[in-house]
Amino acid sequence: MEHNVIFQPSGRRGKVAEGKTLLEASYELGVEIEAPCGAHKVCGKCKIKIETGFFEKFNIDSRIEHLSPINEEEKNLLKPEEIADNYRLACATEIKGDILIFVPEESRKADQVVLDTGKERVFTLDPAVKNYYVEMPKATLDDHRDDLRRLQDALKEQFGLDNLYMDYFVLRELPNKIREGDWKVTATVLYDREIIDVRPGFVQKCYGIGIDVGTTTVAAYLCDMSTGQMLVKDGMMNPQVRYGEDVLSRITYAMMNKEGRDKLHDAIIEGINTLASRMTEKVGLTPTDVVEITLVFNTAMHHCLLNLEPKFMGRSPFAPAISAPFDVKARDLGINISRSANIHVLPVEAGFVGPDNVSVLIAEEPYKQDEEMRLLIDIGTNGEIDLGNRNKLLSTSCATGPALEGAQIKFGMRAAPGAIEGIKIDPETLEVTYKVIGDEKWHSRGGKSGAKGICGSGIIDMVAEVFKAGIINKSGKVNMNLNTERIRRGESGKAEFVLVFADDSGIGKDITVTQGDIRAVQLAKAALYVGTKMLMRHLGVDKIDRVTLAGAFGSYINKESAMVIGMFPDCDLDRVAAVGNAAGDGAQAALLDKNKRIEARDVAAGVEFVETAVEPDFQERFAEAMAFPHSKDPFPSIKHILDKIPQR
Amino acid sequence: MEHNVIFQPSGRRGKVAEGKTLLEASYELGVEIEAPCGAHKVCGKCKIKIETGFFEKFNIDSRIEHLSPINEEEKNLLKPEEIADNYRLACATEIKGDILIFVPEESRKADQVVLDTGKERVFTLDPAVKNYYVEMPKATLDDHRDDLRRLQDALKEQFGLDNLYMDYFVLRELPNKIREGDWKVTATVLYDREIIDVRPGFVQKCYGIGIDVGTTTVAAYLCDMSTGQMLVKDGMMNPQVRYGEDVLSRITYAMMNKEGRDKLHDAIIEGINTLASRMTEKVGLTPTDVVEITLVFNTAMHHCLLNLEPKFMGRSPFAPAISAPFDVKARDLGINISRSANIHVLPVEAGFVGPDNVSVLIAEEPYKQDEEMRLLIDIGTNGEIDLGNRNKLLSTSCATGPALEGAQIKFGMRAAPGAIEGIKIDPETLEVTYKVIGDEKWHSRGGKSGAKGICGSGIIDMVAEVFKAGIINKSGKVNMNLNTERIRRGESGKAEFVLVFADDSGIGKDITVTQGDIRAVQLAKAALYVGTKMLMRHLGVDKIDRVTLAGAFGSYINKESAMVIGMFPDCDLDRVAAVGNAAGDGAQAALLDKNKRIEARDVAAGVEFVETAVEPDFQERFAEAMAFPHSKDPFPSIKHILDKIPQR
Repeated sequence: MEHNVIFQPSGRRGKVAEGKTLLEASYELGVEIEAPCGAHKVCGKCKIKIETGFFEKFNIDSRIEHLSPINEEEKNLLKPEEIADNYRLACATEIKGDILIFVPEESRKADQVVLDTGKERVFTLDPAVKNYYVEMPKATLDDHRDDLRRLQDALKEQFGLDNLYMDYFVLRELPNKIREGDWKVTATVLYDREIIDVRPGFVQKCYGIGIDVGTTTVAAYLCDMSTGQMLVKDGMMNPQVRYGEDVLSRITYAMMNKEGRDKLHDAIIEGINTLASRMTEKVGLTPTDVVEITLVFNTAMHHCLLNLEPKFMGRSPFAPAISAPFDVKARDLGINISRSANIHVLPVEAGFVGPDNVSVLIAEEPYKQDEEMRLLIDIGTNGEIDLGNRNKLLSTSCATGPALEGAQIKFGMRAAPGAIEGIKIDPETLEVTYKVIGDEKWHSRGGKSGAKGICGSGIIDMVAEVFKAGIINKSGKVNMNLNTERIRRGESGKAEFVLVFADDSGIGKDITVTQGDIRAVQLAKAALYVGTKMLMRHLGVDKIDRVTLAGAFGSYINKESAMVIGMFPDCDLDRVAAVGNAAGDGAQAALLDKNKRIEARDVAAGVEFVETAVEPDFQERFAEAMAFPHSKDPFPSIKHILDKIPQR
Repeated sequence: MEHNVIFQPSGRRGKVAEGKTLLEASYELGVEIEAPCGAHKVCGKCKIKIETGFFEKFNIDSRIEHLSPINEEEKNLLKPEEIADNYRLACATEIKGDILIFVPEESRKADQVVLDTGKERVFTLDPAVKNYYVEMPKATLDDHRDDLRRLQDALKEQFGLDNLYMDYFVLRELPNKIREGDWKVTATVLYDREIIDVRPGFVQKCYGIGIDVGTTTVAAYLCDMSTGQMLVKDGMMNPQVRYGEDVLSRITYAMMNKEGRDKLHDAIIEGINTLASRMTEKVGLTPTDVVEITLVFNTAMHHCLLNLEPKFMGRSPFAPAISAPFDVKARDLGINISRSANIHVLPVEAGFVGPDNVSVLIAEEPYKQDEEMRLLIDIGTNGEIDLGNRNKLLSTSCATGPALEGAQIKFGMRAAPGAIEGIKIDPETLEVTYKVIGDEKWHSRGGKSGAKGICGSGIIDMVAEVFKAGIINKSGKVNMNLNTERIRRGESGKAEFVLVFADDSGIGKDITVTQGDIRAVQLAKAALYVGTKMLMRHLGVDKIDRVTLAGAFGSYINKESAMVIGMFPDCDLDRVAAVGNAAGDGAQAALLDKNKRIEARDVAAGVEFVETAVEPDFQERFAEAMAFPHSKDPFPSIKHILDKIPQR
């Protein structure tokens, strides 16, 4: 007898025989769980969490009773609170029924590779939070001033800062800090208005984190705000994935489950706390050294992270609780950095176009550009598109799905060591060469590459290459008549193409691209393409002068592949650029330059949102956009490539 | 073998034989603990808490091992967290060594009597927190405004309120509240600046609490800020008493004990939370209905309640952390009222003259008075004195001790049913008549009165009467040569006077006034007298035109008795008035009229603080002031009384 088993956040799923352990199931389904003791139930590293309830998305009823009872080894290796919270050891737990499992970040094998931003940006250094060192006269019986007044007077006298107030939690320790520093202290001031930290003596450094909270991926940047230097980049899967892979299913989860909103909130806050301690530890700091965080996300994630009621975001007329930028205390969100630290939330534009797009805009600044017609595409589970220039700027949002981030792709994985990031297919022999993250050389058949899966940029290459090799046709269908053992019928008879054979791979089985994978990418690229075309129609333009591709993995995208699959309309390839995580760059810019926050507020108010999905011919256009470009289509920039595609 | 046993917050102490239960000890020492089951270990009402550690003040080393081990009945009747927190049942716990016990409010027998304020005050109704009802247009696809903007726009349009921001925790539920009210809501706005609550539909009521946190007594007033009506008065012993009876011993406790500051803070916050739920329950509300609290206290209590480092308050030059008035979120202090509620802290003047004196000033407004030389005395464990008028106002603070509040007096007790509140002694027969709280008639010997002890006003009467009857002489010494069985030698041979014999009392033993009690009152009244004289010298005046006596029990004070014992210099008795708890009245005034907060800030800055205790002849003057007034002393207003005192 077999049962349905689903692993989150990867989304890997399949039928697994009754009695197998969850660790064995993870091997079968290609999920990476750390188990250094080799399943001997002694290390306790393969901790996983059982998620219970009915998950509509997967049509699965996951129950704790669908597993073998907890045994002695687990009782010894898990903390009581973990047991209470449905944690189990994957090596010790046998499957007895349908089950949904969440693999926590610390139990996953691969380290996150932090991607370089693709573009050097020059930020003005004028942060909202600054340090001021002052010396004060000692208190005496003749000088009756209280400690705060004494500090306020010194800050006014020495820096012209007036009318400052102090956060309550700083005030509590103020008398000690002043005397520890022998009446010389460094005050950390937010917006030249609120004292959010006081430390004895002279302190130069001042730390902040810019965070881009994507639906699927979270990217974080620890910066020294006193120098503008970025010290550590880090990332993780969004821990909310366990409650739903897309924003609508998360909103549904929040609405349908008791304390659903709190669970979503707690999951991402815990993730941010993990990132904050991991990043600060790397450079010998502690999370309490961090005095500010800037946050960007789409509007649904904005509500889910901030624990604002998201219910009405999911239904017409889609009004958010708040659009304006705002500041909130870290402690009020449960973020464990400095207790008085500030969290700055960038503004929402409209509908589902959120602070993440505003962040892309303040990084790329298309509103400072004169005549050129510029297209910005931010690729993520929710794609955001901007089109225009100084005169007018339109934006829209489209449900791309997580395929381009490696989720919902059979062998999709994060951009981590072992992930295939680039692919070439010889149109004659149909043989494959490929590049794996963490390894400089290109691999071909018969060479052990240790590949484990395919990340976002590899997926785009893969689809472009099978198309260019004539393995799939214009409508995306796999040609079963080609003479190669790489093309075959896989599970339930569906067509698939073998990229890496089991002997060469690192997972002991073939890595394939399936007909389903092709379809998922077609849906994603069609959504982006139609969104762009709709914006062009609204602006009355038929030609794009420049294309900027952004996304958490953007710098690795092969721009030619992106254009060959038809992700956006024709543009001179020299004027197409991948710029990396522009939303993350914008979050950093807002951290390091407070004027960027004003720019963000202004652009959020000025950009015009177009709800493209409600346009009358949207469905028809979308269906057309599913197809791949043809040499007769209006793609002059890649005509030389399209012309070479074998017609078979 | 006997051990030292101390009960807090009453401070009752004595030697108790080994093996007696704590409940038996409480009977012996006259401490009231509720035990409705008659010590049968079934009701669980006689819960007490063991305080451990070395308490310098009492020179006692209190340890949990100084008691019999916890037994089965206790395990059944106490919650696990109570056991962990050193709670025991007094009836089940035997004494094996020195021990300090805290009797929680709910285990004490007598209900607090809430005293009427002695003076009707007319407050202007212009609270800092107000409700505004607005109707908004529904969100549509054409009206892209977010919920907050929509509410802000309505408040601007309908009430001219501009630039409002919203507390984060209100924002979280805003979408629900707006739709529950069908786009009609009531916004609660602080300082016409911050939205701190939003409720569906029309809501008129708006609740706040004014709290006067005394060193020994806490007085609280629940008000409807929409009408200015005071709904409930309540009070309790300050739960911090367990850590020290006066402010210096509490500061010492905070400095010398691990987490001492947190313990002091937590104790009073828990007390405020108890008051808030008790008071709101009385009128069918919940604590979350309360949106603002105003706090007044002396400067040391200000620091201890707010958990500001108090260490440097206790040593020269006595600089506080903050003097200015400020606002802090209830949640940041751990006060469980509305999560977004505001706590307004009134300003400190200087040194130990705190917001409580500022509060007395804004209630009594001596700064609005033209020529009259006015003396304000606020009687408490810390006495505050103000002298002056519109032209100049001086203030000082003096360590009165808690004697005038009934603590450190052998049979002292709070102003609760059973407390003797008024006394007359016949100078011929030396027989006593007295009045007990909760009973209209005056009692004399042979009549069962059920008296349990003496409260503050009774103590002042008692001392005045024994003096007027010639039982004590000018220096306070009891005359042992008088022919009455009421005068005798008590414990350790010290003189005492029997007020109520055991047959008449409600505690099965004689209620006496001891030589020690007389001394404690002399110390308190001398402190107040010397303080006043020093201020008169500073102002260069030799006559006072008007005296106002304030204090948590002030309205019951017999002003003639207060003058006869020499609590203040001579003044026409018609121009002496007891006004009740003026500090509490000021806290209410600041709650109901935001202009009073500005007045408070201005008077705190304008009043001149005089550190009287450092004056060169302070000690000498103090020693002189210990004596009682003599008919040859400059007390013309009471010369007719002093002349009648029998000289024996």
